[in-house]
Amino acid sequence: MGTDVAIVMGSQSDWPTMQCAAQVLDDLGVSHDARIVSAHRTPDRLHDFGKSAADEGFKVIIAGAGGAAHLPGMIAALTHLPVLGVPVKSKALNGLDSLLSIVQMPAGVPTGTLAIGEAGATNAGLLAASILALADHGLTARLKEWRAAQTDRVARQPTD
Amino acid sequence: MGTDVAIVMGSQSDWPTMQCAAQVLDDLGVSHDARIVSAHRTPDRLHDFGKSAADEGFKVIIAGAGGAAHLPGMIAALTHLPVLGVPVKSKALNGLDSLLSIVQMPAGVPTGTLAIGEAGATNAGLLAASILALADHGLTARLKEWRAAQTDRVARQPTD
Amino acid sequence: MGTDVAIVMGSQSDWPTMQCAAQVLDDLGVSHDARIVSAHRTPDRLHDFGKSAADEGFKVIIAGAGGAAHLPGMIAALTHLPVLGVPVKSKALNGLDSLLSIVQMPAGVPTGTLAIGEAGATNAGLLAASILALADHGLTARLKEWRAAQTDRVARQPTD
Amino acid sequence: MGTDVAIVMGSQSDWPTMQCAAQVLDDLGVSHDARIVSAHRTPDRLHDFGKSAADEGFKVIIAGAGGAAHLPGMIAALTHLPVLGVPVKSKALNGLDSLLSIVQMPAGVPTGTLAIGEAGATNAGLLAASILALADHGLTARLKEWRAAQTDRVARQPTD
Amino acid sequence: MGTDVAIVMGSQSDWPTMQCAAQVLDDLGVSHDARIVSAHRTPDRLHDFGKSAADEGFKVIIAGAGGAAHLPGMIAALTHLPVLGVPVKSKALNGLDSLLSIVQMPAGVPTGTLAIGEAGATNAGLLAASILALADHGLTARLKEWRAAQTDRVARQPTD
Amino acid sequence: MGTDVAIVMGSQSDWPTMQCAAQVLDDLGVSHDARIVSAHRTPDRLHDFGKSAADEGFKVIIAGAGGAAHLPGMIAALTHLPVLGVPVKSKALNGLDSLLSIVQMPAGVPTGTLAIGEAGATNAGLLAASILALADHGLTARLKEWRAAQTDRVARQPTD
Amino acid sequence: MGTDVAIVMGSQSDWPTMQCAAQVLDDLGVSHDARIVSAHRTPDRLHDFGKSAADEGFKVIIAGAGGAAHLPGMIAALTHLPVLGVPVKSKALNGLDSLLSIVQMPAGVPTGTLAIGEAGATNAGLLAASILALADHGLTARLKEWRAAQTDRVARQPTD
Amino acid sequence: MGTDVAIVMGSQSDWPTMQCAAQVLDDLGVSHDARIVSAHRTPDRLHDFGKSAADEGFKVIIAGAGGAAHLPGMIAALTHLPVLGVPVKSKALNGLDSLLSIVQMPAGVPTGTLAIGEAGATNAGLLAASILALADHGLTARLKEWRAAQTDRVARQPTD
Repeated sequence: MGTDVAIVMGSQSDWPTMQCAAQVLDDLGVSHDARIVSAHRTPDRLHDFGKSAADEGFKVIIAGAGGAAHLPGMIAALTHLPVLGVPVKSKALNGLDSLLSIVQMPAGVPTGTLAIGEAGATNAGLLAASILALADHGLTARLKEWRAAQTDRVARQPTD
Repeated sequence: MGTDVAIVMGSQSDWPTMQCAAQVLDDLGVSHDARIVSAHRTPDRLHDFGKSAADEGFKVIIAGAGGAAHLPGMIAALTHLPVLGVPVKSKALNGLDSLLSIVQMPAGVPTGTLAIGEAGATNAGLLAASILALADHGLTARLKEWRAAQTDRVARQPTD
Repeated sequence: MGTDVAIVMGSQSDWPTMQCAAQVLDDLGVSHDARIVSAHRTPDRLHDFGKSAADEGFKVIIAGAGGAAHLPGMIAALTHLPVLGVPVKSKALNGLDSLLSIVQMPAGVPTGTLAIGEAGATNAGLLAASILALADHGLTARLKEWRAAQTDRVARQPTD
Repeated sequence: MGTDVAIVMGSQSDWPTMQCAAQVLDDLGVSHDARIVSAHRTPDRLHDFGKSAADEGFKVIIAGAGGAAHLPGMIAALTHLPVLGVPVKSKALNGLDSLLSIVQMPAGVPTGTLAIGEAGATNAGLLAASILALADHGLTARLKEWRAAQTDRVARQPTD
Repeated sequence: MGTDVAIVMGSQSDWPTMQCAAQVLDDLGVSHDARIVSAHRTPDRLHDFGKSAADEGFKVIIAGAGGAAHLPGMIAALTHLPVLGVPVKSKALNGLDSLLSIVQMPAGVPTGTLAIGEAGATNAGLLAASILALADHGLTARLKEWRAAQTDRVARQPTD
Repeated sequence: MGTDVAIVMGSQSDWPTMQCAAQVLDDLGVSHDARIVSAHRTPDRLHDFGKSAADEGFKVIIAGAGGAAHLPGMIAALTHLPVLGVPVKSKALNGLDSLLSIVQMPAGVPTGTLAIGEAGATNAGLLAASILALADHGLTARLKEWRAAQTDRVARQPTD
Repeated sequence: MGTDVAIVMGSQSDWPTMQCAAQVLDDLGVSHDARIVSAHRTPDRLHDFGKSAADEGFKVIIAGAGGAAHLPGMIAALTHLPVLGVPVKSKALNGLDSLLSIVQMPAGVPTGTLAIGEAGATNAGLLAASILALADHGLTARLKEWRAAQTDRVARQPTD
Repeated sequence: MGTDVAIVMGSQSDWPTMQCAAQVLDDLGVSHDARIVSAHRTPDRLHDFGKSAADEGFKVIIAGAGGAAHLPGMIAALTHLPVLGVPVKSKALNGLDSLLSIVQMPAGVPTGTLAIGEAGATNAGLLAASILALADHGLTARLKEWRAAQTDRVARQPTD
């Protein structure tokens, strides 16, 4: 059995954001593997990763990058697996560049894009889990439980 | 056997955009059902749809809306199924409002967001297919074929 | 006699902003109640709140949320009461996403939107008071007094 | 008995937008009066209007303007009545300038801002009606009916 | 002889920005007077100031404000004197709202707008001086000198 | 006696916008001269124009340009005369690039910036007139008359 | 002798924009070759092209793309040749997405980015020519001549 | 033999950004010279520099500036040498103004624009090196080596 989710990111500096995806997958008992694949600095690694991801056994790919964030879209070009993109907050433009670079893909090659930053990374993990849960009743149960617990944690009053 | 994909949209006027999702799902032989569910004008229908979508047998939900586009996020709040959001181009702000309203979800409730407009709708269909293909070898084959044909159609010279 | 104004917010973290609404309502002697209702994490609570707000006796609803801020618009979909929206400043996009998500409602379901952040929350309180003052001469007097005092507090010269 | 709602606009050219407010108020049986008050070209008329609006018997003011849209905020500075602002779509920036000029009011002087353009004008009418309905059971009934009819008009399928 | 330049601002908190205008006017020997005139909190003071500014002997008005920055445009509506606008940096949107609210005036009522923040305030002072210098040879000489000194201060190498 | 106002523009294609400045100056009886000076395609002409503008007898310079609109700022660098900038609407970004390129000048070299497009050009003419009127009682009278006529032309009702 | 400049674009639909680069290179007598290389639909062609471009004899690469425009940056990742990027105007966001996707490259992999649309394509051709001219006196002469002719074509008056 | 690359910047305060260009050129053994040339405060120095840059022996010019960043475009207007522009991060608008002022050049006068801030400065150095390498085999080798080392430095796991 392979690892279900690949979490790839363009740079070491994306890890504080992307570990939120790893965290929620851990919480839900989904196997995952985190790797650095820089579209720009390691284009061969990108090409190899994209081409072999399905054969490696991955089912969903979460890709995070910032600025001219080409990683999610380029992986989506290289594999038929579902690719989820996380726009990492960038220095000058706060992630608006990352967001547009990831989400505005042309017809034919989709990336399912989440919110800028940590919330987006957490949600990429959750969306990956919801995808895998389609064929895994146990995971469906754990996901529902996670969501129910989240609902229960919401206080009634702001001063609670 | 239920229908695999629900294509929901906030208004009749979103259909010219959203039918691109229906089209690509047809091309790939994925069953789908198109409905109008307005988050704002039919909140009960929204609530019912979100609550019952999994029981109805849907596996993936594609939701398109424009402006203050609450439909995808509100469905995602009501179901554990994967929800893909399509920002429909809006009159004044060209869909930038739709995009931000759909993609900037808080941690805990994800929507996988595609590009603004028709390209996004087509890609929502493709991403839904790639998700369903994880458990359907036939669909995987058709999806790969669709992608290969797309690659083959790209001319070598602009004047071809 | 019910409480006049409901101040609802999507999350505990919105309180530092939203308490400015509570503060000005206190100053003006308007009864109010602050609650957390997350459109995304507690959609049933949202549905219940929106449906019952008028019956509970509320007259005006102030709703604050950040990012993909669906709370004000979804409450407005569920009640005929006037709903005022406060865009809470968001992490990456400074509340521009919150603003557009709240203000760009489609024809048929209005939210009266105030400025991003604390100024907007204070003004939501003031606007609620001006609405309630239409049927309350005492409140009209207090509101005029509050505005006059505000005018009086404006210094003539900037003092180094 | 005075007229309930004043619809003011900065220029003749705002009327195609602002008449949507008049239309919905007509539908709901709310009395209204439409006037041109240019903050920039008729500042005395603005001052007079703002100062006398309450005495004239108006209860809610709807103000629409485009570009550097100062009309709603300046009226709000001159009256304690609730002021609703409609950002009219502008030539170069599509109403983003109108929106920010109207909504970003400082603490102390609120304008309840609606969406850019015709949807915003319609919603200003609806919000005004919901405010007036607080003291008018008949209007409450008509508003609920209007909303129910709107809900009923939403088709189930996009191809209906 | 009256004071030549009025520096008005919407709030005490604009002074750290606007004092840059005062400073450069001091450097150039131009008489000026700084006042707080809030378009929103002191609309009568605004009206009086705008109406009487020419009679008071002012020749140029520098007006600074932030957010929905109506002060410069409203003064320009009330006087035929040249009005220069300074967009003060705002909390959420960094002065983009201030800039658009000041610069996007309709045909008929101009504000000469400077850059956001301190640079804009300094430049408002310089532009006022260049306007006054048209009828004041001494000031022309001092302005040219100021500009020459500025040129001389520019180092040749970044590490100088 | 020299010509009072130079209207310069970066390209022939800016004339439909900039002629609005010429028109209003004609209306007010202010002498003016329109020239094409391209900062990028005729940098020597720019340099010569900026250096000699004061000696040629011009008192105010109106400069219009689009896109990376360097003309107003570069003229302001070369002359101590007041320079007014008109952002011409650009093809892709609707003049937002023109506006920022003109208005965001560093401390030390001001351009008084008007609105994007024709309204801005008209207003540049009016602002130039208000500057020249400081030393010309006849022009002051004509300017006041022009403004009064503008006020008179504003209808009372939108359907007038 | 190889061809000096490769003009690559993501899609047939980019040709109306990119042919402006071909045109100016023709004018200057620079050899060039136009090809379609879609980063997303033909990732292998992209990989091959980037890897072999230097060996094929190209000296400068001009790459144009729209939306999530990954082509220029991905080629820059695959070759040490200078890569110039042209943001093609996109449907919803007018090329702002294309611009940010191309220009905001991380440190280590540069793309020299030109303006959005046809002006940018023309300029990419000119910049490529200026690069090649460093080692080609004939081209330097033709480039200077082209620039001089451009300067000469600028009329003196807008009404010429 | 002259110096190959001129690094010019509008102000001393741009040096912390622009030294990244100097650093990478040092790493690659490319001769360079850093100067302050303010388009606005030293327009004669700009004119002289632009006119003489080719004769001084420079081959490539890197120009950095912030806000209304006219330096790169104005140098490009004055020389046929390739000009690379670096948008320095600005105070209020984070460099978006700098970016648009540099990149949106009209057809006829190109600037090859890099990313906002330090990454852009580093990349301007790298792009200059890739241009010079076209006629310098040794530099080509060093550039390839630099790129290979960069690739090698990319870790495999984020937690490496």
